[in-house]
Amino acid sequence: MATIELATWISKLSYPDLPQPVVDAAIRSFQNALGCVIGGSNHLATQRALQALQLVSSASTCTVFGQSVRTPKSTSRVDLQTAVLINGIASHVHDYDDTHLHTVIHPAGAIVVVLLAFAEHVKLSSGKSTSGQAFITALVAGLETSLRIGNAISPNHYDEGWHITGTVSSIAVAAAVSSFLALDVHKTVHAIGIAATQVTGIRVHFGTDTKAFHVGRAAQNGLLAAMLAEGGFTAATDALEGRRGWIEVLGNGANTLQREIEGLQRCSAPKNAQDLDRQLWEIEKNTFKPFPCGIVIHPIIDACIQLHGENNLNEDDKLAAIEKVEMRVHHLVLDLTGKKTPKNGLEAKFSVYHGATIGLIFGSATPREYEDSIVNLQNVQDLRAKISAEIDADVRSDEAHIKVFMNDGRVLNKHVENAVGSLARPMTNKELEIKFIDQTEPILGKAAAAHLNELAWKVLDLEDLGAVVEASA
Amino acid sequence: MATIELATWISKLSYPDLPQPVVDAAIRSFQNALGCVIGGSNHLATQRALQALQLVSSASTCTVFGQSVRTPKSTSRVDLQTAVLINGIASHVHDYDDTHLHTVIHPAGAIVVVLLAFAEHVKLSSGKSTSGQAFITALVAGLETSLRIGNAISPNHYDEGWHITGTVSSIAVAAAVSSFLALDVHKTVHAIGIAATQVTGIRVHFGTDTKAFHVGRAAQNGLLAAMLAEGGFTAATDALEGRRGWIEVLGNGANTLQREIEGLQRCSAPKNAQDLDRQLWEIEKNTFKPFPCGIVIHPIIDACIQLHGENNLNEDDKLAAIEKVEMRVHHLVLDLTGKKTPKNGLEAKFSVYHGATIGLIFGSATPREYEDSIVNLQNVQDLRAKISAEIDADVRSDEAHIKVFMNDGRVLNKHVENAVGSLARPMTNKELEIKFIDQTEPILGKAAAAHLNELAWKVLDLEDLGAVVEASA
Repeated sequence: MATIELATWISKLSYPDLPQPVVDAAIRSFQNALGCVIGGSNHLATQRALQALQLVSSASTCTVFGQSVRTPKSTSRVDLQTAVLINGIASHVHDYDDTHLHTVIHPAGAIVVVLLAFAEHVKLSSGKSTSGQAFITALVAGLETSLRIGNAISPNHYDEGWHITGTVSSIAVAAAVSSFLALDVHKTVHAIGIAATQVTGIRVHFGTDTKAFHVGRAAQNGLLAAMLAEGGFTAATDALEGRRGWIEVLGNGANTLQREIEGLQRCSAPKNAQDLDRQLWEIEKNTFKPFPCGIVIHPIIDACIQLHGENNLNEDDKLAAIEKVEMRVHHLVLDLTGKKTPKNGLEAKFSVYHGATIGLIFGSATPREYEDSIVNLQNVQDLRAKISAEIDADVRSDEAHIKVFMNDGRVLNKHVENAVGSLARPMTNKELEIKFIDQTEPILGKAAAAHLNELAWKVLDLEDLGAVVEASA
Repeated sequence: MATIELATWISKLSYPDLPQPVVDAAIRSFQNALGCVIGGSNHLATQRALQALQLVSSASTCTVFGQSVRTPKSTSRVDLQTAVLINGIASHVHDYDDTHLHTVIHPAGAIVVVLLAFAEHVKLSSGKSTSGQAFITALVAGLETSLRIGNAISPNHYDEGWHITGTVSSIAVAAAVSSFLALDVHKTVHAIGIAATQVTGIRVHFGTDTKAFHVGRAAQNGLLAAMLAEGGFTAATDALEGRRGWIEVLGNGANTLQREIEGLQRCSAPKNAQDLDRQLWEIEKNTFKPFPCGIVIHPIIDACIQLHGENNLNEDDKLAAIEKVEMRVHHLVLDLTGKKTPKNGLEAKFSVYHGATIGLIFGSATPREYEDSIVNLQNVQDLRAKISAEIDADVRSDEAHIKVFMNDGRVLNKHVENAVGSLARPMTNKELEIKFIDQTEPILGKAAAAHLNELAWKVLDLEDLGAVVEASA
């Protein structure tokens, strides 16, 4: 019954059900995702996909975000499904998006790009606008679906080689679009089923364009599923929990789905006046990346940026005086991000050594410090070679220790207890704003970036979501 | 190196490499698939998908085949990706397509619909025609890729719940389009990788519209992969054999991929003059379904049709005189097709009892005998209830025994050693022709069906594949 119960929850969810902290979390997820889509819009991977597909997209109904770097051939409007793919790729291509720590899902990108494009499509074809409230409700339906079914298959699913963001987001997007379209329970069940059978993303592709493709394709999968279901196309009604269903084939562990669905139901059950017993929604555990790389590297980068500021490491002679660097890190760091000599920006995202290096040299870790040209700078390569890492079983995932040994015998120490962006030390709205502006200003310009940032925070006031899309072009 | 070796084989394959029996097998696969696409074009699942998606397909570049039953809203031309989805669904919706027995893959449908639509797209956008030879070469590249990588993961992959036709066809289509586009090895590697990460099809959906969707979506997956790769989009170069790659994540068994690739290479190696040592290509083991249902039921249907003809069971009183029916069948029959009381045509495809019933009553098992109205006829239900099946470990998969006990004490016996459509008793070209006409005539009309059948057999003579597409509309 899990599939039907999930569909029931989705189809019943309405804006007044959402507690304020859930709305706040959804807006933060949206604002961050929007910045990432625009920030990733001129990445080579995004541009390659756009140029490969725009010739077969003869419709011009939906906006490709950003696109400041435009070739003579390129366009900023394509058909609905192509827009969703390109914007989805852009949302993830810098590995700068949100992260639900327990599952390692980056949940918002696929859902946000689909809802924005679909709202644009609906407006164009029927003249009907989408309100900010309807948008946030559908986003929450998608995010909670993503994280709940993600919980049910974690950690086995990811460990076995699936890129969980891709596999789960197909279903999450179907949930969001089902909510958006106000599909009944029956059709929502079929939407979930059709989405679940499109399992996109194996981890062998990490470090290539195809990692970000997983998010774009999941966006397309879920959208297609909901549209087919709306048209009466049928799927199994027990697609998640049934024999040879999604959990059995992909979970390969205990079936904890039912427990997750019950958690979901409790969240939206009547709450007592004091709100003391309020169950936390999964969306409230979504975090945001201050740095565009694997999250396990973040404590080290945080430490290195602090060391940079405290010791004026921007001066060349100080950098040259570093003899060696020793780090003690969480046990997953080397398994996931142990690349010693990354060759390009995409590989550098999986190198804790590169993360430490740019923190120490530049005091900053934004997409700029992950450009190929920076990764291959001589002084970056030199410092990277001086860094060693050791696993320490006592170090938590948001914690790190680092020692910088100088030629003159001095040792610079730093211990980060809770990295910025962690659950214990979440990015503030102010920090998210800085990140947003940093990503969007080079592409949209100063005034437009500031305007879009404001629209994002005030999305609930919008009677027509089209304003966001217009400001993102 | 398996991915690179496979890509090398694909990119080097040219028409003169193909032995005559391989060409013949490819043409039979094509002719059968084409008939199935048209035969499935007015199925409710196909129509639902078309109606759900045609409104977002504002381009009219590619033909949806068949479409004799057209609603006021429907159209016969949509964009490339939508055409491929709809025609792909149609190809499989009657479960009447081809079958590679070792892997249970239905390989041709997805590849054929993509190559035809893509040829149409290329003609429209660049004026360039596709020859029958180029088409058959690309088809062989796709079919061999499908069956070789299918061999490498069988039988575990299917047993664990994957609909292998969907999962494998994504890669096969990418191979075929790579060949069609004459992509270099490098780009073919990326096409394979992007296709491999789109894993479509879990078996929970058998008996619903979504089973056929797997073929349509695989067609889209592979096409998208090849187009992105052509545009320089990158993937892992060891997507199949690498750590957390396709074989490791989905094969879950011994890695036999390398052996399969070597088999592939041997096939196209220089042959001796007598051709005595010629290695069989996998495509030569493709078989064609005489009946639109799970292949394990075919021996029983064959037996029942023979009994019908030999005993005049078309007469009502003779049918009424049947007391009970006992069958002895291969061990997989009840596991895969054990539905006792199917409620509709799609479920009936998974019922050996329904297969036996229509064979005995109608002496025929075509899509007509799998329509919902037939499945729910009273005399069909009555006879179905009188049939029992027993597993016999000595019965081979293409074999069956059946005993029909009459009220007067007579017993009608039939033993089918090799069912029609099996490797030992393949469908003849004449039988394929009858099947093709039976499927296409009600939709295209008598003259057009005969013309298209002729074109299919003579595809090698065509300088422009467009003739086939035109005749299929």
